[in-house]
Amino acid sequence: MEIIYKPIGVIHTPYKKEAPPQPFYSEAEGIVELYEEYRDGLIGLEKFSRIVLIYHFHLSKDYKLLIKPRLNNELRGVFATCSPNRPNGIGISVVKLQKIEGVKLYVKNVDILDETPLLDIKPYLEKKE
Amino acid sequence: MEIIYKPIGVIHTPYKKEAPPQPFYSEAEGIVELYEEYRDGLIGLEKFSRIVLIYHFHLSKDYKLLIKPRLNNELRGVFATCSPNRPNGIGISVVKLQKIEGVKLYVKNVDILDETPLLDIKPYLEKKE
Repeated sequence: MEIIYKPIGVIHTPYKKEAPPQPFYSEAEGIVELYEEYRDGLIGLEKFSRIVLIYHFHLSKDYKLLIKPRLNNELRGVFATCSPNRPNGIGISVVKLQKIEGVKLYVKNVDILDETPLLDIKPYLEKKE
Repeated sequence: MEIIYKPIGVIHTPYKKEAPPQPFYSEAEGIVELYEEYRDGLIGLEKFSRIVLIYHFHLSKDYKLLIKPRLNNELRGVFATCSPNRPNGIGISVVKLQKIEGVKLYVKNVDILDETPLLDIKPYLEKKE
């Protein structure tokens, strides 16, 4: 069974080759550029101060099930890490939404490589305990 | 450009046709069953009390860019909602990880339909403000 997705836009960031391990280590700003055909899908998104970006790790070529995480030396299963090299190269980041202009979303706290293909945007809903 | 993913497992839940809108409305338990070939990828995951499940909305056939959310009447862009009917049918849930037995993860707070194809598992890392 294959699941086929198509990018809905592209993410522009200052990170050309390497990104920080988690968005809360990053103050970097980026621009999420939605393709014009999806413009109406943004209506109402401006009400959210945080959004979830889902994207494809486009520079990852292969993966190992056991890897060494960046922040320590313990060998770990890939699903216990946020490594971009995974069976399905799907990345998720929660970012601050600063403003929307047309199909461009100005965001902060990006930990994403420049030119990353965007797969989805969702509102970030806080869990109330 | 097409991005092709392959399910790494399947999610079993009590929800056969309709799921609650958000995991924090649900106390339901489920079993995430990883395919045997990915077993090593779970090593170290037991340290996390919450995990992120990424999956494919397998029953969604089509989408509209403007939709009426379940909880109010305001017309909204699909990216400002969590509707399963989206350009790329990717779902995300943060669930409680209760135990791991072999390739089976026993989870709580699932808002996912039964037999949903699993695409990825990530540790849930709390944002420290």
